[in-house]
Amino acid sequence: VDYQHVQVPFEITLWIMLASLAKIGFHLYNKLPSVVPESCLLIFVGLIMGGIIYGLNDKSPPVMDSDIFFLYLLPPIVLDAGYFMPSRPFFENIGTILLYAVVGTIWNVFGIGFSLYGICQVKSFHLQDVSLLHNLLFGSLIAAVDPVAVLAVFEEIHVNEKLHILVFGESLLNDAVTVVLYKLFRSFCEMPAVKTMDVLAGVGKFFVVGIGGILVGLAFGMIAAFTTRFTKTIRVIEPLFVFLYSYLCYLTAEMFHLSGIVAIIACAMGMKRYVEANISLKSHTTIKYFMKMWSSVSDTLIFIFLGVSTIGENHEWNWPYIFFTVIFCLIWRALGVLVLTFFVNRFHVNTVTGKDQFIIAYGGLRGAICFSLVFLLPDFHRKKLFIAATTVVILFTVFVQGMTIRPLVDLLDVKKKRESAPTVGEQIHIRFLDHLLAGIEDISGHWGQYYWKDKLEYFNSKYLQKILLRECDQPKSSIVLLYEKLERKHAMELAEAGQLGHAPSQPSLLHSAFLCSNSHRSVVTDGKSDDILNPDVLENIQEILARNLFRIRRTVPAYNRHTLPGETEPAEQAKEILILRHRSL
Amino acid sequence: VDYQHVQVPFEITLWIMLASLAKIGFHLYNKLPSVVPESCLLIFVGLIMGGIIYGLNDKSPPVMDSDIFFLYLLPPIVLDAGYFMPSRPFFENIGTILLYAVVGTIWNVFGIGFSLYGICQVKSFHLQDVSLLHNLLFGSLIAAVDPVAVLAVFEEIHVNEKLHILVFGESLLNDAVTVVLYKLFRSFCEMPAVKTMDVLAGVGKFFVVGIGGILVGLAFGMIAAFTTRFTKTIRVIEPLFVFLYSYLCYLTAEMFHLSGIVAIIACAMGMKRYVEANISLKSHTTIKYFMKMWSSVSDTLIFIFLGVSTIGENHEWNWPYIFFTVIFCLIWRALGVLVLTFFVNRFHVNTVTGKDQFIIAYGGLRGAICFSLVFLLPDFHRKKLFIAATTVVILFTVFVQGMTIRPLVDLLDVKKKRESAPTVGEQIHIRFLDHLLAGIEDISGHWGQYYWKDKLEYFNSKYLQKILLRECDQPKSSIVLLYEKLERKHAMELAEAGQLGHAPSQPSLLHSAFLCSNSHRSVVTDGKSDDILNPDVLENIQEILARNLFRIRRTVPAYNRHTLPGETEPAEQAKEILILRHRSL
Repeated sequence: VDYQHVQVPFEITLWIMLASLAKIGFHLYNKLPSVVPESCLLIFVGLIMGGIIYGLNDKSPPVMDSDIFFLYLLPPIVLDAGYFMPSRPFFENIGTILLYAVVGTIWNVFGIGFSLYGICQVKSFHLQDVSLLHNLLFGSLIAAVDPVAVLAVFEEIHVNEKLHILVFGESLLNDAVTVVLYKLFRSFCEMPAVKTMDVLAGVGKFFVVGIGGILVGLAFGMIAAFTTRFTKTIRVIEPLFVFLYSYLCYLTAEMFHLSGIVAIIACAMGMKRYVEANISLKSHTTIKYFMKMWSSVSDTLIFIFLGVSTIGENHEWNWPYIFFTVIFCLIWRALGVLVLTFFVNRFHVNTVTGKDQFIIAYGGLRGAICFSLVFLLPDFHRKKLFIAATTVVILFTVFVQGMTIRPLVDLLDVKKKRESAPTVGEQIHIRFLDHLLAGIEDISGHWGQYYWKDKLEYFNSKYLQKILLRECDQPKSSIVLLYEKLERKHAMELAEAGQLGHAPSQPSLLHSAFLCSNSHRSVVTDGKSDDILNPDVLENIQEILARNLFRIRRTVPAYNRHTLPGETEPAEQAKEILILRHRSL
Repeated sequence: VDYQHVQVPFEITLWIMLASLAKIGFHLYNKLPSVVPESCLLIFVGLIMGGIIYGLNDKSPPVMDSDIFFLYLLPPIVLDAGYFMPSRPFFENIGTILLYAVVGTIWNVFGIGFSLYGICQVKSFHLQDVSLLHNLLFGSLIAAVDPVAVLAVFEEIHVNEKLHILVFGESLLNDAVTVVLYKLFRSFCEMPAVKTMDVLAGVGKFFVVGIGGILVGLAFGMIAAFTTRFTKTIRVIEPLFVFLYSYLCYLTAEMFHLSGIVAIIACAMGMKRYVEANISLKSHTTIKYFMKMWSSVSDTLIFIFLGVSTIGENHEWNWPYIFFTVIFCLIWRALGVLVLTFFVNRFHVNTVTGKDQFIIAYGGLRGAICFSLVFLLPDFHRKKLFIAATTVVILFTVFVQGMTIRPLVDLLDVKKKRESAPTVGEQIHIRFLDHLLAGIEDISGHWGQYYWKDKLEYFNSKYLQKILLRECDQPKSSIVLLYEKLERKHAMELAEAGQLGHAPSQPSLLHSAFLCSNSHRSVVTDGKSDDILNPDVLENIQEILARNLFRIRRTVPAYNRHTLPGETEPAEQAKEILILRHRSL
């Protein structure tokens, strides 16, 4: 046996297999996932696995490598999040999201940092050696809400779109703030003295990291869209480009110490509409499906590894510090949401209700990002305390908050996501109102969101589309695209229903129709049958035809070697429909 | 800039990107790929890349790592080949394929090895130090036809199915022979003396490697099929299992020194029908598409790396040895095919024609497997000579044979693949004849292929299907599956044609139909219009209706919030079709 040779791919494949099988296992019992979120179950599996490894080897099980997390596990999840981001609610609430993500995160970092420093001054806790900077550093890594954990929980509770995008958008965009503050405090910890210049540079750096990330993302997104212009002859590698360019964009951003998460989201949101117009339908299915699959596996692996990494001897259990960390995380987040929402509600027509505020505060789950950041800390004597505190905060938020949030949502009767898609009427009205508001904003000289949206749309159709889309594919309006999608779906349903052999349910209607079609042979007076055929025989024929004819007629052109399908068929089809339509009018 | 941190994934992504962009580039000019096979173009790109790297660094560019090739690049291609293997022609010609793969490869190995040893005895060539064992070792790696190269060329020339499966099947199954002979001679080279026992053990090992590979593959295939029984609630990770189990099977086989290629092919062919029945349609599209994409990228990378690795100072140019290697490769292959086909044609009803024999011999392309094996050789003083000879043989076969085989196929007028799929009539007849022949074989007591096929089918439906398929999904016959597929395809075409707004091409027919539908209001005598409506207005209405009505009628149920689509629709649809059908009769 030559295990050495295949070890690396073999073990990776086995871990992924374990994750997938665990996922299947949970879903075999229908009741389990509806009570306990999948993330909790996965961490639990991880804890058991870690326990087994610990028991067998008598040493700490391997910890999730931060590099593996940031380079391989996180990007698929963020790409999936960005690609399927509902852009309308996101941009409508972009101000609120940014406020929560930037000001809220800074508020939390400093709030948690300073209050923990206060706790460290209590002599009986034996924590006097933890400096203010270290507490702030810890605050910067524990303050950030985790997109992976938020997504895992919020996807299952189906709150309304606005609430979802507020929590989820914040968890994604706070990455820029977290990156800057974390790196800033880490470098401050290693400096002999901190000067005012360094603090100012840190503030400037925030803008570089955030806006730089957006620019890198948009650049890669546009290149990706441009590339798919030329893939018409080799459809098979189209999906690849979406993945390759997004990943390159993430890596490039990380390389320049920009926010990779922000970059990949900008890239995915930027390229989506152009790529979708350029690529084939099957490529698109593959992209969607594979993205979901990949992010689902990454997600599963992250939670299992979180569980595995919890077991072991990496922890220093100073209970007061850990206890107050959990408390402060809850308090400062609640306070932050209250204060910020107060300002949001003052300046925004579309207010955030009290219930929403509670869910936003309560939904601030921590996850694998905190965990990876705490392991990336430089070695110092209290690192194990920070690891223990982070682990407890993550487990507390995922288990306690994650499991109680669904009952709370039900209890508070928080507005849920509407089940059905908006009707065409609604969509047309929304579109109409957008134009109207853009016009009003233009006349009144107010540069609001509708004004900018209108300008962007103009720029898009005037320049971007001409460069990024193939000439033959004229850009279609979203209504037409929606229509096409529904038409396809309907056709599929029809085909499936047709082959199930649905016999007509109203024989009488069929009967008269059958006779009507014979009207040039037999004289029809008022739609009743005459005696040309015995009614019994007729009904028999009808049944046989109804069961078989529809199919044969449809499939003949596809089978036939001597005729090309498609050309004459639809016209005939349209005619048939037309006739029937008139009959029923 | 922190390049170190992201280097590994960044460079991998860039290589894949380069490969994909090269592929797009070739296809921009339509004429190029039709003359020069893609593999040649890719090697050419690789040569240029290698030249640039060599010129810039002034040292040999990195050589394709054999581990990377065997562990990461080869499996996707073989999985793709196995999954899409046309099983009927494969099993019909399995005897011939095995004869070529086993006896033919052994013949080539010893033929090339011994005759090169003869060349080494010529004093003026300065090759006396190359021993017989080394020559045989070299023969064992250079004799094997390469599936990647064969696939790349034969996919473009569209020869008939039987010829394709003979060459391609041989290139896949000879892996077991190559693995055994290569490892045998390599260990002999390191032994002080070779005993008869070792030779006998080698012969026994061949059966272990081949049959062991098949068993490992089938075992994993069945587990994979069994796993997909339970994925109904989480469709999104279904495609993953196909990839994970196939890869695990490959790695397991490699771990036990069995033939990984044979294992993965057995796995893919074994699981295909069960997996397809269990998983959803979209999962299946994703699997198919992703497999094609992945193998296409692997393939591209392999040829580019082949080109890159050619440049550099790894070679010892002893021209006589290289020249005779090429000559002997051609001669022994041609002789082998002639002799083996003579026996095949004696015992087989379905003979291999002379033209086919020529193409089989000429299509024996060498590729990346030889290349990786030669780099895996233990270091000895003539390794660079072997590398040079292998490189030249690969380049000669891929460039000269690969580029001339298409004109030769045209010139010889070799039977091409039929363009159209078999009609339903043909399929039913084939099925019928299978049953008939199985019966005849059973009566006459001859245990031929039909007998075994029938027994296998019985075993499958009696036991395997019950274990591996979900209960609710009753196994459907392949005719029904084909029908469903055609129905879906047709429905999609219909939907697409419908939304393109095809106006009816025969207005007169439409006209009369329109009037007929009004027959209960107006009196129609012979299909001509009366004066109820102005003809101009009528035509106008017709046009509007023809453009819009078909769509609206179809999409209304999908849009409407208050009704459920699907239930009553198809019946109505069937009725409409029925009426029209009768009109046209």
